[in-house]
Amino acid sequence: MGNDRYYSLNLNIRGIGQSPTLAINELSKQLQAQGKHVYRMGLGQSPFPVPSPVVDALKMYAHEKDYLAVNGLDILRKAVARFHRHIDGVDISPKNVLIGPGSKELMFLLQLVYYGDIILPTPCWVSYAPQAKIIGRNIRLIHTTFENKWLITPEQLETYLSSENDQYKPRLLVLNYPSNPHGGTYTSQELKPIAKIAQKHEMIILSDEIYGQLHHEGKHVSIARFYPERTIISSGLSKWCGAGGWRLGTFAFPPTLDWLMNSMAAVASETYTSVSAPIQYAAVRAFEGGIAIERYLCHARRILSYIGKRGTEIFAGAGIKVHQPEGAFYLFIDFSQFSDKLISKGVVDSNTLCEKLLNDTGVAILPGASFQRPEEELTARLAYVNFDGSKALAMSETIPLSQSLPDDFADYCLASVFEAINKIVDWIK
Amino acid sequence: MGNDRYYSLNLNIRGIGQSPTLAINELSKQLQAQGKHVYRMGLGQSPFPVPSPVVDALKMYAHEKDYLAVNGLDILRKAVARFHRHIDGVDISPKNVLIGPGSKELMFLLQLVYYGDIILPTPCWVSYAPQAKIIGRNIRLIHTTFENKWLITPEQLETYLSSENDQYKPRLLVLNYPSNPHGGTYTSQELKPIAKIAQKHEMIILSDEIYGQLHHEGKHVSIARFYPERTIISSGLSKWCGAGGWRLGTFAFPPTLDWLMNSMAAVASETYTSVSAPIQYAAVRAFEGGIAIERYLCHARRILSYIGKRGTEIFAGAGIKVHQPEGAFYLFIDFSQFSDKLISKGVVDSNTLCEKLLNDTGVAILPGASFQRPEEELTARLAYVNFDGSKALAMSETIPLSQSLPDDFADYCLASVFEAINKIVDWIK
Repeated sequence: MGNDRYYSLNLNIRGIGQSPTLAINELSKQLQAQGKHVYRMGLGQSPFPVPSPVVDALKMYAHEKDYLAVNGLDILRKAVARFHRHIDGVDISPKNVLIGPGSKELMFLLQLVYYGDIILPTPCWVSYAPQAKIIGRNIRLIHTTFENKWLITPEQLETYLSSENDQYKPRLLVLNYPSNPHGGTYTSQELKPIAKIAQKHEMIILSDEIYGQLHHEGKHVSIARFYPERTIISSGLSKWCGAGGWRLGTFAFPPTLDWLMNSMAAVASETYTSVSAPIQYAAVRAFEGGIAIERYLCHARRILSYIGKRGTEIFAGAGIKVHQPEGAFYLFIDFSQFSDKLISKGVVDSNTLCEKLLNDTGVAILPGASFQRPEEELTARLAYVNFDGSKALAMSETIPLSQSLPDDFADYCLASVFEAINKIVDWIK
Repeated sequence: MGNDRYYSLNLNIRGIGQSPTLAINELSKQLQAQGKHVYRMGLGQSPFPVPSPVVDALKMYAHEKDYLAVNGLDILRKAVARFHRHIDGVDISPKNVLIGPGSKELMFLLQLVYYGDIILPTPCWVSYAPQAKIIGRNIRLIHTTFENKWLITPEQLETYLSSENDQYKPRLLVLNYPSNPHGGTYTSQELKPIAKIAQKHEMIILSDEIYGQLHHEGKHVSIARFYPERTIISSGLSKWCGAGGWRLGTFAFPPTLDWLMNSMAAVASETYTSVSAPIQYAAVRAFEGGIAIERYLCHARRILSYIGKRGTEIFAGAGIKVHQPEGAFYLFIDFSQFSDKLISKGVVDSNTLCEKLLNDTGVAILPGASFQRPEEELTARLAYVNFDGSKALAMSETIPLSQSLPDDFADYCLASVFEAINKIVDWIK
């Protein structure tokens, strides 16, 4: 350092910091180390443990040491294909499944090999746009609205595409539902017209369904049902299986896109090589499912749905705009009703909003700007995962699934979540 | 497919196939599936199992599910730093260690973030050049010679650098020793003048020491001893710990290059996120070392050294040029003495050489061209790993380390290796 000629960095990478979700996680840890109580609602990590049959499988296969095939272990690719057929009703062939060290890495490879624009309805997950920036791809943002439940409308999509005057320009539309950051999702009726427009433009859809199994009612529908020929379904173990730290993601391709999959595999063979062998063997158990995993999911969904509903009520009661999530574990809150008050306190954008909130209350959430919303919009994502998922699951298992969770469940298992939500409400008042 | 507009691929990626080592592994599997006996000496995978204390550690930490810090688990970074201090005599700080899903992925990130030329003495490992091609970097090959034991000389390096007339041009010199593909390595005396030239040009050295612990005499020396300020040491679990399929690599940086490490971590946070948590916890045990692992290494080295020496004798006896390896598990063989005979059989380059050899004898080895040697040069790499490493270790443990391995050890444990070597010799005669 100290000498400029030492610094020779790819211009696309200069100034890129760490992914904000990870950065806030590390900052929160630092504050905690300083003795400050922090409500860690920044990082979107499942609060639940990995289901025990899956942990047992990892132990059983701990000795597996061979480099596996680049595209993934055959029995795992079969299990993933079966999973999509069984759960999503989409016909996927095992040979069209690609296994990666996290779906994030697979998305990066997709953007690296595909030479086209990336279209992002916002708010969108934090890493799509930085990946495009690193690679040097064009990013086209389409801002959705609170009124439309943060969902893209067919009209918005068509208006944008028509404006470009190039029907078949190579484009990748990224749809993520249930959504990170807002938990909302699309119905079949909403997906069909989007599929139709994509078809007209022969546009590829990256359908990020990592939260599909965490639809609170278990009613996730994939757009691949309506546009199988050019939809790539992204999934993985991180969310529904509580195994974010294990790093295993999956892409399921239609046969027509095998040229994309093959190119991604070629790059994979020169980069990460293959996914960790013991992890792949254990993942087979996860994708096979069965009663134990089904029960785990039912309890997880009931807990997440409960928090989403009650959290929405608390925020709405205080005049904070928010939609009740239908899946995942996020609330995307909009402080625009309080903008005058906030501006007078020096809060001029979502970044200062979240900084001030963290300093004043110890509640760590992520600014809307991280999800590609306009800087000055006073929105933020709250990940309601700061509770002991093992304890909550154990407690939930004592209550029949046919019943709702009682309020003392929250007092016993979810106190920190509602404490933090109430701190935000008190702070804004 | 069938319609050109569907194909929109990054031009840097078009035509890139799978990494040849992995491709030949999959081809060999296919031939085997057809009932043909194949001697699989293509893929450079350690024949030995993961040491049992390390497997036990993976079982113990199988439940670990959190996303870990991008740079790696703190206790692992400490263990890696200690490892380099203890084994290599290089002062590394834990905060300058980066953990990745294989050192290959880390090398890719390094090339992606660093904006400079890459200098490769050949023969070199198969993936350096394709990585540069994917990213679009300039590749400068410096061909070494059989006479110089396939090592780069200070004169060669200086001649090349002077020719560019730009003393401080950003450059990355990749040195890999003990070497894949030839098993040769550098002495301190050979490293010092190279370090001096690098210093003069303020050139960064990526010192790929993944086989350091597999120096047959346990006498590996790192160039970081002589050029600490700009050397990055690359290592990992794949070779000395027999855990290629686990995917864990490490980079150790000097403090002066923290800008490079930080940029790599920023990209990592947008791609693979962090390395699989259970694998990282288990890796701590591996890098901590201790008596059990030390014994494992001593036996592994004795076996590899034995094969290297005897294999060299057999090849040399038949007039095939080869240097006895000093580390790792490769023989880089040179058929140039037989070029007239081979050309008359239609063998015009190293690719056809290896194809014909595989077809005629069932012995799968990799062509010199994969290691960036000139196409028409009749060289090839043989990975002598087609034996049962567990059985060989168990047998070796019955023989005191002070003794040499007896010849019936080879008959009992290494028959397939020498069968294949003799098949090559018979074929060429």
